[in-house]
Amino acid sequence: MMEDKIQNEDIVSSKNLGKETIYVIKIGGNIIDDEPNLISFLENFAKVRGKKILVHGGGKLVTKLAAELKIEQQVLNGRRITDKETLTLVIMVYAGLINKKIVALLQSHGCNALGLCGADGNFMAAHKRQINSATGEPGVDYGFVGDIDTINLELMQLLLEKNISLVLAPLTHDGHGQLLNTNADTIATEIAKSLSNDFEVTLVYSFEKAGVLTDVNDENSIIKKIEPESYKKLKETGAIYAGMIPKMDNAFNALQRGVQKVIIGKAEKIHQLIKGESGTIITR
Amino acid sequence: MMEDKIQNEDIVSSKNLGKETIYVIKIGGNIIDDEPNLISFLENFAKVRGKKILVHGGGKLVTKLAAELKIEQQVLNGRRITDKETLTLVIMVYAGLINKKIVALLQSHGCNALGLCGADGNFMAAHKRQINSATGEPGVDYGFVGDIDTINLELMQLLLEKNISLVLAPLTHDGHGQLLNTNADTIATEIAKSLSNDFEVTLVYSFEKAGVLTDVNDENSIIKKIEPESYKKLKETGAIYAGMIPKMDNAFNALQRGVQKVIIGKAEKIHQLIKGESGTIITR
Repeated sequence: MMEDKIQNEDIVSSKNLGKETIYVIKIGGNIIDDEPNLISFLENFAKVRGKKILVHGGGKLVTKLAAELKIEQQVLNGRRITDKETLTLVIMVYAGLINKKIVALLQSHGCNALGLCGADGNFMAAHKRQINSATGEPGVDYGFVGDIDTINLELMQLLLEKNISLVLAPLTHDGHGQLLNTNADTIATEIAKSLSNDFEVTLVYSFEKAGVLTDVNDENSIIKKIEPESYKKLKETGAIYAGMIPKMDNAFNALQRGVQKVIIGKAEKIHQLIKGESGTIITR
Repeated sequence: MMEDKIQNEDIVSSKNLGKETIYVIKIGGNIIDDEPNLISFLENFAKVRGKKILVHGGGKLVTKLAAELKIEQQVLNGRRITDKETLTLVIMVYAGLINKKIVALLQSHGCNALGLCGADGNFMAAHKRQINSATGEPGVDYGFVGDIDTINLELMQLLLEKNISLVLAPLTHDGHGQLLNTNADTIATEIAKSLSNDFEVTLVYSFEKAGVLTDVNDENSIIKKIEPESYKKLKETGAIYAGMIPKMDNAFNALQRGVQKVIIGKAEKIHQLIKGESGTIITR
């Protein structure tokens, strides 16, 4: 018995041995819309040692631009519908302005960043969400929205080996010439999962709150650690509210697929987050 | 003497031996603004065998968008001044909309394209053109316009080795976080020059005319071949007009720096151009 135990531990440690850490960090719209905050975040991100991937959301610029161009925005269940005109704005703002601004700023801080959308090098292939699909809501058409099918791991490895930090815009393509708007949290999750065979992956979802809170109005009520058991209880007591649930489900999905840990907190505290000194850590 | 000659020929042929051909193809605004034509061009581009790089210009979309957003465009000597607001539009349209649309369409035709601007992977570093610089016009400030300093040959080779076709947006960066608008002809020229040590480079400038014409109004008056001597004569007789001169100077500059040949003609005839069956060939 004792021998068996030691042997098993050896297998586990040899499996982890030599696996390099990689950080997959998702930043949300709140920091993208706040230029001084974004600049300061990127300076900190550039200082994170080792391999890293940044996935960015969209921010409010598309809404602002749509209003200026008098392109009416249709919203359903609180989410924007990506019609043809909106997709054009999304491509311009996400893959153009935000992505290249981030890349240029990271370069200025000595981080060799390279921006990609899903079409580049067939990095993330997807299909347009069908109206009655498992991932959608029955009868609801969000327009040019994509669900990821494949990630080009070979290209990702090629670039990561050269210590290039990838900056991913939340856009995929369908292989037939169509770009598709894709949720940035989902992209971060899928990227993290795809890397888990080769790396020790830490996945960070940063957002406007300091972490998962028991009281939404109290930044000091952070839950430091969540495991499957405690998650179940938190949902039962209603401590984890609606908007948080898809993020948590994404997190547990990533953990089940080999991601080492998931951290939720403020982008402004990126160094404390990855050290475990801030935010909520979600583990298996 | 005979022996010497043979030896020299051997050296020449061994120098060329094993050098793979690469095509650097620049497409101008006229084809970008004409969607059916662009789609057909990209289908043809995807079929060009071997390694290839596409450099695209801007087209009229920035002007259109600026008008819609009521951003006043300042023009000097027929060229747009890239002020801060215009640069934002340029980044959105060139690096976002046009670049990603081209990449997605090429992917749909089985061409593994990847779009980059100069900041991505520090691909093209530049400096903002100074008001009284050698490349500018004395006293003229074109705004956020960049002159290329370096090209990241290592990254280019890394991607080309994997048979990835690069799609370059006409934007560079200064290494201090600033993106800069850069002439697409110049980018194509500098990229072609940088590759000439390792490849047999064919550089194609495509534009709205069928080639260099002796009579601007007669598409049949194409000059099939231009060499330094004939260029001198064509300038003297006024057959080569003002707008053509910077393009020709770029071409001869590329040839002097090791590029094998430069071809000028219509993007619609890309296969005939590279076979020498259309357009104007410029050689040393």
